[in-house]
Amino acid sequence: MDIIVLKFGGSSLSDNIKLNIVANKIIDFYNKNNKIVVVVSAQGKTTDNLIKEAKELSYEPNKREMDTLLSTGEQVSISKLSILLNRLGYKTISLTGWQAGIYTSNDNGEAKIEYIDTNRIKNELDANNIVIVAGFQGINSKNDITTLGRGGSDTTAVSIAASLQAAHCYIFSDVDGVYSADPNRITDTTKIGELSYDEMLDLSNEGAKVLHNRCVEVAKKYNVLIETGSTFNNNVGTLINNKIEESCVKSVVKNDNLFLITLKYESYNADMLNKLYFLLLSHEIIPLNILNNSTNSFNISFTIKACDLGKFQELLEGEISMFTSSFTNISRISLVGYGIMNNKNIIEKALEILNINSVEIFSVELEECKLSIMTKEKVSDKILEQLHHELI
Amino acid sequence: MDIIVLKFGGSSLSDNIKLNIVANKIIDFYNKNNKIVVVVSAQGKTTDNLIKEAKELSYEPNKREMDTLLSTGEQVSISKLSILLNRLGYKTISLTGWQAGIYTSNDNGEAKIEYIDTNRIKNELDANNIVIVAGFQGINSKNDITTLGRGGSDTTAVSIAASLQAAHCYIFSDVDGVYSADPNRITDTTKIGELSYDEMLDLSNEGAKVLHNRCVEVAKKYNVLIETGSTFNNNVGTLINNKIEESCVKSVVKNDNLFLITLKYESYNADMLNKLYFLLLSHEIIPLNILNNSTNSFNISFTIKACDLGKFQELLEGEISMFTSSFTNISRISLVGYGIMNNKNIIEKALEILNINSVEIFSVELEECKLSIMTKEKVSDKILEQLHHELI
Repeated sequence: MDIIVLKFGGSSLSDNIKLNIVANKIIDFYNKNNKIVVVVSAQGKTTDNLIKEAKELSYEPNKREMDTLLSTGEQVSISKLSILLNRLGYKTISLTGWQAGIYTSNDNGEAKIEYIDTNRIKNELDANNIVIVAGFQGINSKNDITTLGRGGSDTTAVSIAASLQAAHCYIFSDVDGVYSADPNRITDTTKIGELSYDEMLDLSNEGAKVLHNRCVEVAKKYNVLIETGSTFNNNVGTLINNKIEESCVKSVVKNDNLFLITLKYESYNADMLNKLYFLLLSHEIIPLNILNNSTNSFNISFTIKACDLGKFQELLEGEISMFTSSFTNISRISLVGYGIMNNKNIIEKALEILNINSVEIFSVELEECKLSIMTKEKVSDKILEQLHHELI
Repeated sequence: MDIIVLKFGGSSLSDNIKLNIVANKIIDFYNKNNKIVVVVSAQGKTTDNLIKEAKELSYEPNKREMDTLLSTGEQVSISKLSILLNRLGYKTISLTGWQAGIYTSNDNGEAKIEYIDTNRIKNELDANNIVIVAGFQGINSKNDITTLGRGGSDTTAVSIAASLQAAHCYIFSDVDGVYSADPNRITDTTKIGELSYDEMLDLSNEGAKVLHNRCVEVAKKYNVLIETGSTFNNNVGTLINNKIEESCVKSVVKNDNLFLITLKYESYNADMLNKLYFLLLSHEIIPLNILNNSTNSFNISFTIKACDLGKFQELLEGEISMFTSSFTNISRISLVGYGIMNNKNIIEKALEILNINSVEIFSVELEECKLSIMTKEKVSDKILEQLHHELI
């Protein structure tokens, strides 16, 4: 009998109709003679609502207490799903993070799983129970409840799969797999059948929301076979494994939530770039890249995430004084696929398409499985579609 | 430094304004140089809502899973109250039942506290934390979450007070103490200053809602000084201790949620009463008293709670066959106070008042601290007022 781990996200659990769909999906896997561990998130918007309620009591709630509060969300999910599966005639047991033996570091709000004591889970599986575990949470050395941060339930599922040497870890969500580009932006994208861990990591880091990168890192380390799929259909999803494939572009991703900032100073000072860099970091603004393109005057450009723009504008009014400044909303386009680094044709073709469309390029970065192009303006979905069409 | 236990019920925690009132009450006690343990219930109607949500998934939810679900209510309360007290500048720590070392029997839904491992609570008090404990919940020998049943938070508070040998256990609610009769029914009732454990037990059993009888039993056993009071004012409440006082009536209570049932059979059979009694018990209908008043025909009367009437009517249509049956909504009036058993004047006076008002009596029961009179009809609040006026 194989052990199978199934993970369901919050939007798959948000009402009783969806809970019934999830329950029937679990029953299908159970009836195929598998031992089943289910990992669930909090229902729907529960976590967001609890955060909102806490912020009404304090601008900066204590992190330990926040974790105690937030962990109730998954606890509600596990018990409800268990009650429902019981009613449908199946033996189940719900386990909170601490009951499931998920031991983490002490960092409340962003704890890391240190080890999983699988005794309880194994005993419950041996007693023919469907085991339903609360994702996103664990217990630290002080016996306090911790949470793993956003996307933590994916990490819980993959870590349990690794500890139990499960045959398969399914991550179910609203979408049935990883696509060659965002289907909301581009027509005629295709679902990717198989990705290597490194390719999936590159996609996660570029903002593909199907899997959290922490969970992919754990899967890579312990060689866990992940399959993504939709809660709401039975289509074959995307398989993430350690397979190395022929060089090709698997996916084209565009991130428009970036700003290119240029500062011009009249007087020049050799350590100005360093000073600026550290100033930004000390205000929790992380420049994605920074470029000293001084010629006559001192001229420095860098890109930041849109969410950091507010913090940067405050800095501009205070600690940074310069001649002129400008900021533009730009795009980063990433092509992901094994072997891109060694495939000159792909790089040339991509740059050529951008050139034909008169898109000015700010920077190009090349990695083993990824080509990232930062432009000097926002790139239209039409151009993305052309890249997708020509390269995939 | 004295250890003080403060317990707040759900209606004292139902919104942020009330949470602030509770927080300030806690701070008042803390600033009087006390070590503070706070025990809280779930906010407002949380528990009822969770029960309703579970029943939407299953008519008879698994009890273990229900306890996991319901325990989230108090977990939300402890973390929110902790977050608020932090913001007001106080060091706090929230503890769930299992974190607070509250070990119970295995009976999910109605577990009994077996012992409290107070190490964690004591360590947190020594670190000058206000310790906020989730009431109503604990952990059993299987490492599963249990709940103590309705009124369980009172029991948690008194049990913690007993284990820590706390100087005082305050039970705060909407009302500031125990009254000589229900203030909603009778004008000019008075608040009782002091009650013995036995008197309070008699009142709790007769439906006075200020304290749950289980908590009073624990307080009696371990000699815990309870003070009831209102969350919303600073009036002196009612003290419950082991003091024995002069014989007098402290409180008059009326319960109208009772039905008197009479069954008439044509043929007589000696063990009919026993059979009926066991039949009722096997259907979880508990007759409060039963009377064989057969003369010519076999004639049996008994009283049941209104909530059992539905179950009984089902029985009537099935397993019980008799000549005629009747049921009437009746009242039980209880006079509570130490030494009533030996005070003939009180008993005579009470029966006389009922007689003047033409109230037919079904039964009279006399105990050390209590006189209970079951009538054959529902007794008006006006008569209750007369009893209160003449006897207290």
